[in-house]
Amino acid sequence: MRIGFIGLGGMGSAMARNLVTAGHTVLVWNRSPEPVERLVAAGAVPATIDEAFATGTVLSMLADDRAVTERLLNPAVLASAPAGALHVNMATVSTALAEQALHVHTERGLRYVAAPVFGRTEAAAAGALVIVTAGETTALDSVRPLFDVLGRRTWTVGDTPSAANLVKIFGNYLIACTIEAMAEATTVIEAGGLDPAQFLELLTEGLFTGPIFTGYGTMIGNRSYEPVNFRLPLGFKDVQLALASGLEHNVPLPFGGVLRDAFVDALAHGQAEQDWAAVTETARRRAGLT
Amino acid sequence: MRIGFIGLGGMGSAMARNLVTAGHTVLVWNRSPEPVERLVAAGAVPATIDEAFATGTVLSMLADDRAVTERLLNPAVLASAPAGALHVNMATVSTALAEQALHVHTERGLRYVAAPVFGRTEAAAAGALVIVTAGETTALDSVRPLFDVLGRRTWTVGDTPSAANLVKIFGNYLIACTIEAMAEATTVIEAGGLDPAQFLELLTEGLFTGPIFTGYGTMIGNRSYEPVNFRLPLGFKDVQLALASGLEHNVPLPFGGVLRDAFVDALAHGQAEQDWAAVTETARRRAGLT
Amino acid sequence: MRIGFIGLGGMGSAMARNLVTAGHTVLVWNRSPEPVERLVAAGAVPATIDEAFATGTVLSMLADDRAVTERLLNPAVLASAPAGALHVNMATVSTALAEQALHVHTERGLRYVAAPVFGRTEAAAAGALVIVTAGETTALDSVRPLFDVLGRRTWTVGDTPSAANLVKIFGNYLIACTIEAMAEATTVIEAGGLDPAQFLELLTEGLFTGPIFTGYGTMIGNRSYEPVNFRLPLGFKDVQLALASGLEHNVPLPFGGVLRDAFVDALAHGQAEQDWAAVTETARRRAGLT
Amino acid sequence: MRIGFIGLGGMGSAMARNLVTAGHTVLVWNRSPEPVERLVAAGAVPATIDEAFATGTVLSMLADDRAVTERLLNPAVLASAPAGALHVNMATVSTALAEQALHVHTERGLRYVAAPVFGRTEAAAAGALVIVTAGETTALDSVRPLFDVLGRRTWTVGDTPSAANLVKIFGNYLIACTIEAMAEATTVIEAGGLDPAQFLELLTEGLFTGPIFTGYGTMIGNRSYEPVNFRLPLGFKDVQLALASGLEHNVPLPFGGVLRDAFVDALAHGQAEQDWAAVTETARRRAGLT
Repeated sequence: MRIGFIGLGGMGSAMARNLVTAGHTVLVWNRSPEPVERLVAAGAVPATIDEAFATGTVLSMLADDRAVTERLLNPAVLASAPAGALHVNMATVSTALAEQALHVHTERGLRYVAAPVFGRTEAAAAGALVIVTAGETTALDSVRPLFDVLGRRTWTVGDTPSAANLVKIFGNYLIACTIEAMAEATTVIEAGGLDPAQFLELLTEGLFTGPIFTGYGTMIGNRSYEPVNFRLPLGFKDVQLALASGLEHNVPLPFGGVLRDAFVDALAHGQAEQDWAAVTETARRRAGLT
Repeated sequence: MRIGFIGLGGMGSAMARNLVTAGHTVLVWNRSPEPVERLVAAGAVPATIDEAFATGTVLSMLADDRAVTERLLNPAVLASAPAGALHVNMATVSTALAEQALHVHTERGLRYVAAPVFGRTEAAAAGALVIVTAGETTALDSVRPLFDVLGRRTWTVGDTPSAANLVKIFGNYLIACTIEAMAEATTVIEAGGLDPAQFLELLTEGLFTGPIFTGYGTMIGNRSYEPVNFRLPLGFKDVQLALASGLEHNVPLPFGGVLRDAFVDALAHGQAEQDWAAVTETARRRAGLT
Repeated sequence: MRIGFIGLGGMGSAMARNLVTAGHTVLVWNRSPEPVERLVAAGAVPATIDEAFATGTVLSMLADDRAVTERLLNPAVLASAPAGALHVNMATVSTALAEQALHVHTERGLRYVAAPVFGRTEAAAAGALVIVTAGETTALDSVRPLFDVLGRRTWTVGDTPSAANLVKIFGNYLIACTIEAMAEATTVIEAGGLDPAQFLELLTEGLFTGPIFTGYGTMIGNRSYEPVNFRLPLGFKDVQLALASGLEHNVPLPFGGVLRDAFVDALAHGQAEQDWAAVTETARRRAGLT
Repeated sequence: MRIGFIGLGGMGSAMARNLVTAGHTVLVWNRSPEPVERLVAAGAVPATIDEAFATGTVLSMLADDRAVTERLLNPAVLASAPAGALHVNMATVSTALAEQALHVHTERGLRYVAAPVFGRTEAAAAGALVIVTAGETTALDSVRPLFDVLGRRTWTVGDTPSAANLVKIFGNYLIACTIEAMAEATTVIEAGGLDPAQFLELLTEGLFTGPIFTGYGTMIGNRSYEPVNFRLPLGFKDVQLALASGLEHNVPLPFGGVLRDAFVDALAHGQAEQDWAAVTETARRRAGLT
């Protein structure tokens, strides 16, 4: 297929590269030029956003609601897109943005689906993401071959794009809750004179398997949060997206309130450049262990 | 070996039976007679608590702190035990009880180790428990062959018995946090018109694998909490043990405070006979979904 | 003085009327005509927003951030205001709006001060409000005679307008916390078979005096939340303003998280038309008392 | 009247002294001798606990559940008390202790009423306590003249002694909530560059009057918690009594969970000798202000 790809951060670059390797013609755009150059060296075609849209199928992987609004919900951009063009937004954005994006695309005769992903850059590079998608069936069918390149599995959760974002937001909510639960538990273990790393090794060996517990468990057990995979303020953004969705649907989220305070505490103590697993240090500070 | 086994509830019966099958001579005691009869039919020897202690090695699996105190920390019982007899307490009890038990045994020339287990009755029946143990090395070595029969893996976490209980309590704390996190997340998913079961299937397929997420996830996703594996008040007891340990070590536990309220709410709504996964209904009530 | 007054809700009408009575010439504007007619009958002058601004001194009392943004931060409105005109915003708005308003006024050569008030419509009618103000000293001095008409006391908290809004927001936060504390305490009192009204009478007689405890205490003690003085969603809006300010200044607010959930629960149970003291019913529901 | 008085701490000494001054014959006992000597110098009669009970009317003001259990629920002490003797327990104890004490007294033909007090040592010295009492009417009538000496007002809340303790515990709960609410609010005020003392002065001048807000507000506004009126661990004990009562009556207490963590945090940071208003420092630590 001939497609556009907007947004070449760590995730987007790995994804676009896989699409090139799979034989697709990929017109790429990024705010800064270096990632574009690297992709072009790998076989991609440099393009403007308009040119990307002109292919009729654009995948995007931008940082947040603001970037999507500014770059892709821009009236000038959408006005020049060909009728029926499809925009597949793969970023973690709010359900409110998804609803607005659907509206804006539809009223201009364009199509919009959401396809946020679970997985980090290594999973993106390995074509092993888990893709959660929602939108009009024919639109989804048309990009299924692309999803098969990018991920190891695609889940369709309905025909309203925002549904996929809700699932993604609350998947991340479970991850944030897991981090805080491990933080609290290991802080008592540490205060009791035992080894947090052994404690988590024991629990992740059979009860809590899978990459979330194993990956974050290693960081938290060792009180060492390198390398930074997901910066703390980004994790906090997702906690806030969850709280906002709770509000929208009138669902109290008491764990969410605790998470909010734990992240604020971390930011108040200068942890903005750390991985979100480092919110563990909030629990340790509260217990006077730092 | 010739050993005693005290406490033949669901877990204890399955464990004692495996020891018999493995060729050990097992003197069993239980408060009510039926479980004793069943074990005797399988090859065990009926006994008084004193006779069980007279073997020199007693494993116990009683319900809670109170039962242990009443049956096994009883001065009359301990006075008749032979010098150097070893008591292996495999129940989930408080760290305070473990400390007291060690003291009481030691001052009478007896030995005490803790060996609480992770796993339900099916795991117990299959000899597939995970055993967490702590205590004097020679004592632990002497019962290692028994642990090898009962569990698929034994973790030693030090020479102070209460350490094993702390690990067990905070393992259960992680489970309780997992249940509440899934309860909150699926309540927004449900309120947003999506399917909680699909949501959890998606997340437990690759990110959150392992029996805790898969097992409780199935219950919570389907809003169906049968069969009752672990009654809600027992889960609440363990949450309270965690809070008490937090207090002992001066560690705030904000998730624990949330759990406490969720369980109290469930008890206020007549859920005492349900599985602790049914604390999910508290989240649904708060959102007006019931 | 000759002044403009924008926004004639319950509070604004009472305030504008007092200014007329005190002999000032008051040009009034309101979205709907009835309040204007009543004020004109009392001696006020009907006006457009532009005419109100043309007096050089405008007091405003609009509903929320959105109404202020739409009506008064409107470029068309501000463009027609005479140089140096002073806008005194007496509504409870966010500190972010106050900062934006100061910026927008200043860049057009206009002046902006904040003067939110404590007190309900009866206090407004009696000229007994407590006014919290912040802004440029000469601006404040120029409207001091107006404040003396409207309130029994004026507190100046600095020269940055948003400071007054921060004080107002956290004054309301204390009120919301007081309501929730009384809700929780009286729920145990009720569950224990005692009389919540007597409990609060006892405590407000000597320890917790003053209108907040006495007024809300009467409602909460009697589980009767009439008349509606401050609708629950407005109270919730202020809780959210507090949480947002906490975020801005990196201050965790655990009571705020609890308030958030209590209000969301109330909204999920159809309490949007009730007084915010009725958040007490959330506490009673949790305990199975309703 | 001829009466006994057990427990001459700061509160008890002031109370016993007032009873002497009012002309009563007061037989006093205390664990340590100095307070007894001072009371005797003022006109009291030194006595054993048995002699105090022999008067037929004993008031007690001991530190906590443990002291009451040890000194006054002691079978030896109660066995020697004359039939129908009345014990008036004025300390803040748990409702469980009150229930047990009633049972123990009744089965021995003795009478027991609860009469905990609000007010500090200055109020005790001035005979200005607020007394909350519950118990059998004739018993209460018989000590009414004593209450009139000790307090400015007596509230009767039923004929079950524990009811008075429940009221006292949740009165203190309101105070603890007030402290935390002021702590959180003033922390944002401080982080926003404003003056916490002015903020609280403004709010306690008209909205939140009364000694709790004024007294603790002065401490909290000035971030200066001297003199120590009520030690932090004692305040924490009362928070725990409230949580236990919530549990007994199946009432979730989310503010109570927050208080628990705030006090644990304070104890983890070495604040055990400070006034409970100093729990404010927990809020400041969380925000990185210390």
